[in-house]
Amino acid sequence: MYDVIIIGAGFAGYSAAIYSARYNLKALVIAKQPGGAIVNSEKVENYPGFVSIPGYELMQKFEAQAKEFGVEIIVDEVIGVIKDKNGFEVKTRSNKEYKTKALILAMGTERRKLEVKGASKLEGKGIHYCATCDGAFYKGKVVAVIGGSNSAAHSALLLSRFAKKVYIIYRGADLRCEPMLKDNIKRTGHAEILCGFNITEVKGKDSLEKVELNLPYKGKRELALDGLFVEIGSVPSSAIAKELGVELNQSQEVMVDAHCATNIKGVFAAGDVTNTVLKQGVTATAQGAIAATSAYKLITGKTVTGAW
Amino acid sequence: MYDVIIIGAGFAGYSAAIYSARYNLKALVIAKQPGGAIVNSEKVENYPGFVSIPGYELMQKFEAQAKEFGVEIIVDEVIGVIKDKNGFEVKTRSNKEYKTKALILAMGTERRKLEVKGASKLEGKGIHYCATCDGAFYKGKVVAVIGGSNSAAHSALLLSRFAKKVYIIYRGADLRCEPMLKDNIKRTGHAEILCGFNITEVKGKDSLEKVELNLPYKGKRELALDGLFVEIGSVPSSAIAKELGVELNQSQEVMVDAHCATNIKGVFAAGDVTNTVLKQGVTATAQGAIAATSAYKLITGKTVTGAW
Repeated sequence: MYDVIIIGAGFAGYSAAIYSARYNLKALVIAKQPGGAIVNSEKVENYPGFVSIPGYELMQKFEAQAKEFGVEIIVDEVIGVIKDKNGFEVKTRSNKEYKTKALILAMGTERRKLEVKGASKLEGKGIHYCATCDGAFYKGKVVAVIGGSNSAAHSALLLSRFAKKVYIIYRGADLRCEPMLKDNIKRTGHAEILCGFNITEVKGKDSLEKVELNLPYKGKRELALDGLFVEIGSVPSSAIAKELGVELNQSQEVMVDAHCATNIKGVFAAGDVTNTVLKQGVTATAQGAIAATSAYKLITGKTVTGAW
Repeated sequence: MYDVIIIGAGFAGYSAAIYSARYNLKALVIAKQPGGAIVNSEKVENYPGFVSIPGYELMQKFEAQAKEFGVEIIVDEVIGVIKDKNGFEVKTRSNKEYKTKALILAMGTERRKLEVKGASKLEGKGIHYCATCDGAFYKGKVVAVIGGSNSAAHSALLLSRFAKKVYIIYRGADLRCEPMLKDNIKRTGHAEILCGFNITEVKGKDSLEKVELNLPYKGKRELALDGLFVEIGSVPSSAIAKELGVELNQSQEVMVDAHCATNIKGVFAAGDVTNTVLKQGVTATAQGAIAATSAYKLITGKTVTGAW
């Protein structure tokens, strides 16, 4: 019987683990992919404390800290959670069952797929979801990023180091990334920002050859591309939460209050899977700390107050 | 004219500075004491990303990151803020005036003073407020910490490395620090926890000699001490906010919403000065990021969304 099981091991999950351990709770982390989405980010520059650090390295530090304090971490996929009178029963893909008094949901998000004609067929054959993973294949080639977020901007910047030309295709009137990133993109000298544009179809026989745009660009609806990197946002990985009866909002985010509590007693949530006001590493980390504190209070009936 | 002036340079202030810079805002930090309260902490083990780091070193990293992104940092004391039709005018102790469109209040807290008979007279003469600063003077001596929080526990642990005996005097039924810290205190072998006790008077001619307790301990109301370290909590440094008309709660904390906005348009607040649910470094850091994001949205009319 665990005091707390944490599902997910990104910023929020590891932070919840670190704090649970400092509260002497018996904590277990179950994660499909330790480190979470940030491990594919080549450079994190906005987690205070580190001027610049690769995402996987930052997550290694989080993991080491959780382990240092004695947290158990298992790589497995949670496929279902059942509430019983003593707490919760967590079932995993590898047919294991774990019992716990409290749950912290920190499953983060999954990438939104490009859903236009031809896209699914060319996935991995010119259409990619991770510039860090696949950018280097496009040395001297022409690529595009679709999307206007910070993630899209980071991908474009990384791709500009390999590709001879990088287009950023975004349906909005202006990129919605940090202005500093936009400046950096302009400074590359070989990136072009196409705002107000969208992709209506992708074409190619064995691999991507071109995309069709919603509007003519330089007089043509077709744009020749060797690679297309999709950065059109994320959807919360909240399916398990929904099955358990946890309240979600219209965006499928887990609804939490200021204490990271959900509508179900004993179920807390933290990070990008929630209706947080700002989806950043440091805000997810803070929510992990708050969720663990709330779980500790519930289990022990104690309050933890004061500056550390 | 600045876009944003940040008052205070602890976790929250530096984080607000880092994020403001990443939003390309013209930002100025004004702080009486750069680094804030944490610089006196010998060991920080609960800021995720660092297994263990001295407080001043962690704040040096925050400062370096803010400076790297181009933030101006001034050591001075803000003595007043006036709201005018274009924004705010900030006046400092050294007679300077700065104009800004938005304000982020991150002044943190000040230590609560021991207010019992004899205490003010012996301040610095056996009565101290910083174990990191003054603990080493008590090698081989008998000392006490008054308080039951994490800060009190950290002070006791540090003092146990110098003193031959450390008492922890706390009025509550049980220490309210992290259980891990309580275990560590017990493991020192020469620390004694006196719960349910309080100090009613401190006595000494030229320096502290003994304290009077509210109840007899081992048959005696008086306890002989060479040093007493006061850790009875903090009060928000919210005087300037109050003068400006910012809404405070009964604990004198600045009231903020989930976006770190106060009741005055253009005034945001972050960290321990606010009514945050958990006063920790990482939660203050997250609030700094949120406050800067809200200031950016207000100034530019843009929204910033998406994962990093």
